[in-house]
Amino acid sequence: MAHPTNLEADVIVVGAGLSGMIAARTLLEAGLVPLVLEADERVGGRILTEDVLPGVSVDLGAQWIGDTHERMFRLAAELGVQTFPQYDEGETSYDLDGSGVLRENAFHARFADELAELERVLRRLDELAADVPVDAPWLAPRAAEWDVISAGTWYDAQGLSPIARTLLEICTVGILAVPTVEVSFLHLLFTIQTCGVTSELFAESEGGAQTTRFVGGTAEIPRRLAALMADHIVLEAPVLLIEHTADSVSVHCRGGLVARGRRVIVAISPTLAGRIMYDPPLSGIRDQLTQRLPNGSAMKAFFVYDEPFWRADGFNGQLISDVGPARMSNDSCSPGDDHGVILLFLEGDQARTFGRLPIDERRTALTAELVRHFGDKAATPEFYIDGEWSDRQWTRGCYNANHGPHVWTTYGHALAEPIGVIHWASTDTATYWSAYMEGAVEAGERAAHAVIAELTK
Amino acid sequence: MAHPTNLEADVIVVGAGLSGMIAARTLLEAGLVPLVLEADERVGGRILTEDVLPGVSVDLGAQWIGDTHERMFRLAAELGVQTFPQYDEGETSYDLDGSGVLRENAFHARFADELAELERVLRRLDELAADVPVDAPWLAPRAAEWDVISAGTWYDAQGLSPIARTLLEICTVGILAVPTVEVSFLHLLFTIQTCGVTSELFAESEGGAQTTRFVGGTAEIPRRLAALMADHIVLEAPVLLIEHTADSVSVHCRGGLVARGRRVIVAISPTLAGRIMYDPPLSGIRDQLTQRLPNGSAMKAFFVYDEPFWRADGFNGQLISDVGPARMSNDSCSPGDDHGVILLFLEGDQARTFGRLPIDERRTALTAELVRHFGDKAATPEFYIDGEWSDRQWTRGCYNANHGPHVWTTYGHALAEPIGVIHWASTDTATYWSAYMEGAVEAGERAAHAVIAELTK
Repeated sequence: MAHPTNLEADVIVVGAGLSGMIAARTLLEAGLVPLVLEADERVGGRILTEDVLPGVSVDLGAQWIGDTHERMFRLAAELGVQTFPQYDEGETSYDLDGSGVLRENAFHARFADELAELERVLRRLDELAADVPVDAPWLAPRAAEWDVISAGTWYDAQGLSPIARTLLEICTVGILAVPTVEVSFLHLLFTIQTCGVTSELFAESEGGAQTTRFVGGTAEIPRRLAALMADHIVLEAPVLLIEHTADSVSVHCRGGLVARGRRVIVAISPTLAGRIMYDPPLSGIRDQLTQRLPNGSAMKAFFVYDEPFWRADGFNGQLISDVGPARMSNDSCSPGDDHGVILLFLEGDQARTFGRLPIDERRTALTAELVRHFGDKAATPEFYIDGEWSDRQWTRGCYNANHGPHVWTTYGHALAEPIGVIHWASTDTATYWSAYMEGAVEAGERAAHAVIAELTK
Repeated sequence: MAHPTNLEADVIVVGAGLSGMIAARTLLEAGLVPLVLEADERVGGRILTEDVLPGVSVDLGAQWIGDTHERMFRLAAELGVQTFPQYDEGETSYDLDGSGVLRENAFHARFADELAELERVLRRLDELAADVPVDAPWLAPRAAEWDVISAGTWYDAQGLSPIARTLLEICTVGILAVPTVEVSFLHLLFTIQTCGVTSELFAESEGGAQTTRFVGGTAEIPRRLAALMADHIVLEAPVLLIEHTADSVSVHCRGGLVARGRRVIVAISPTLAGRIMYDPPLSGIRDQLTQRLPNGSAMKAFFVYDEPFWRADGFNGQLISDVGPARMSNDSCSPGDDHGVILLFLEGDQARTFGRLPIDERRTALTAELVRHFGDKAATPEFYIDGEWSDRQWTRGCYNANHGPHVWTTYGHALAEPIGVIHWASTDTATYWSAYMEGAVEAGERAAHAVIAELTK
């Protein structure tokens, strides 16, 4: 990949995450020349696979797709990346509100009423979300009312039992990666509607967001995309400044590289897009929007064992717990390999507190939690790896941009609207599966098609 | 003021607002050499005085100090800037919740019960705020409880009459410049405690935050400060990148200027500080903090008449209204000049909506409001000027950084804590009158003293 100091292209793309690379590929297919500037030394953005042992790779970033992610299935097929189903046999292990560790069947029997409560709330969320236009949430009939309260405030008002309220919080933080008091209720409803219904989001089976994985790890997708257009990607080129006129852009990077083009697509999260200096400066509304879309806080921790011992004990590898540093886990084994891999999620407050600890302390606390749920075999992993996304300079948090109270109704229209020759991508700007890889593809295609329409008319 | 491409100093200061210039002056007094890099073509930051007619200047930015602002009174005296009292004779004009326009005495008589309710809430706020340590709000005994709800949610739970609730909202938005649903209740209590008690904040007389103005406009302060150290200030030098080691910094500006020193004091609002690229990068906690401290939305609109006609009618020039684009106004005449100047505040949602309109439409709507309250003479001003702070590239919102729910308790400790050779100033990091000029001075002095202690030990 090239490292010159002056480059020209039709369209400059900022960010070689999935959204930016899809935009670039779409432009190429239309006969336009893109140039992707990536700050990091790798492509992929919030997709990051580490090969940790021979035959074992782990996805520190995006890992799954769901059955309705048609763009992603098509993309994988085109690139020759194989998929395989998420392991989902056996029981989940629970420990909630002092219940002690309970296997799924026992937990369901004991808390059937509480689970029914939860189900009723999820159905109610689906009904309300159906009124939210995904391309303009601020136009929902009750947008004003829903945007002045937090999701947490709405949850608290539902009169739920402690078990149901805790489960609801865990499910939601598992999606938003921030506590529910930090996001607007309208944003929660948008998040549900952009994905279909709550069952798509919260479930791992029968059509949820986490049914399917990629052989070799998710990073096979950006790696192969990059290989198709290696001449059009410059790594280690952090963008500092975008100068723009009515028909041109000059994009200035640290180190002196200047890339000139006719359009620019900024394909990074809104908070990072707001850090670039623009000349002439952008409107106050656009600027204040990017001050108000913080990324969530998330990290994944992987334990590699010599075998997936929990499967033999009838567990699916999932835990749901309000004890210790992780609220959820997953079986994360690789196909064709005998190792057992289990993944723990630290999201929201757990990422913020335990993410600050020395790695050994965090590992010890997580190990203890695995032992409590899955037995002594969990005590002796062969390998451990984790990573907190807010520490990564070119990402600064996962999974996506979260809208606090009053942001959608006040600033939402500025989220994806082009400003002159500047277009916006990244999954945070998508209307279908926003915050997911599917949304990254949708947003990249949308931005590219808008640019193509302007440049080829 | 110099414009070279390589400069050296002991301490680089980013931002020639009041905080940065006070830091620089404090360093100079200690025998250290500062260099202030200012992005704008002027000094002053959120202080901005425009001379609009001979003898008439208006403060589009910070305008008042209060009786407890000892640092500011001392600074003005040192610099030879005269002060004068805010005009405060006569009645305020009200129009709230459909009351129609009422003079203060009539309003107070009709809504005595509602005003008593408001007074009770303010006293309660004072009691609660007294438990908030201004240097560590997250250590308040009830911090966790107060930080998960918005100020608006707490207000809504007080069972107030519509008039009292509306007045409380207007008073609070007048301080925070965002709707109360956008800030944590803990942040509101911090804001009260950093200023003393609610009566300091909400009152304009007898010791409030707005008792005193500066002859010639507030910008006399930064102008004279800058004149004392003109060799140490570089204008039009927007900082893009700060490289730092254990004992040195290199601060890179747009246009190629590189300033080298032993320490850097970043004296701009946290959201703008977060836009600078740091190498090595800062921690995830610090970064996510700056993603979560948006500036408020505020603008001031000034009408200049041939005389302050409202005074003769027994008005003090203040209105408090929930009708139209402005919630409050003030008599803003200059001493020794016969013109009548009235100032309308557009804050929070009003700044965001009316601030987007063409200036003529906004002026027309504001004029109509003045006529309703102060009569037909208000219809024909000699001059009009306004300005929305989020449109200003090097400020991006006023009056200050606002902490939404969960920010103080999660990230607050990273607000003012130095990171290696990088120190933080700006009023947003102050513990006494944070968000005011008094806080800007306190924060600048605090950062400078910390640097002096490190460099002269």
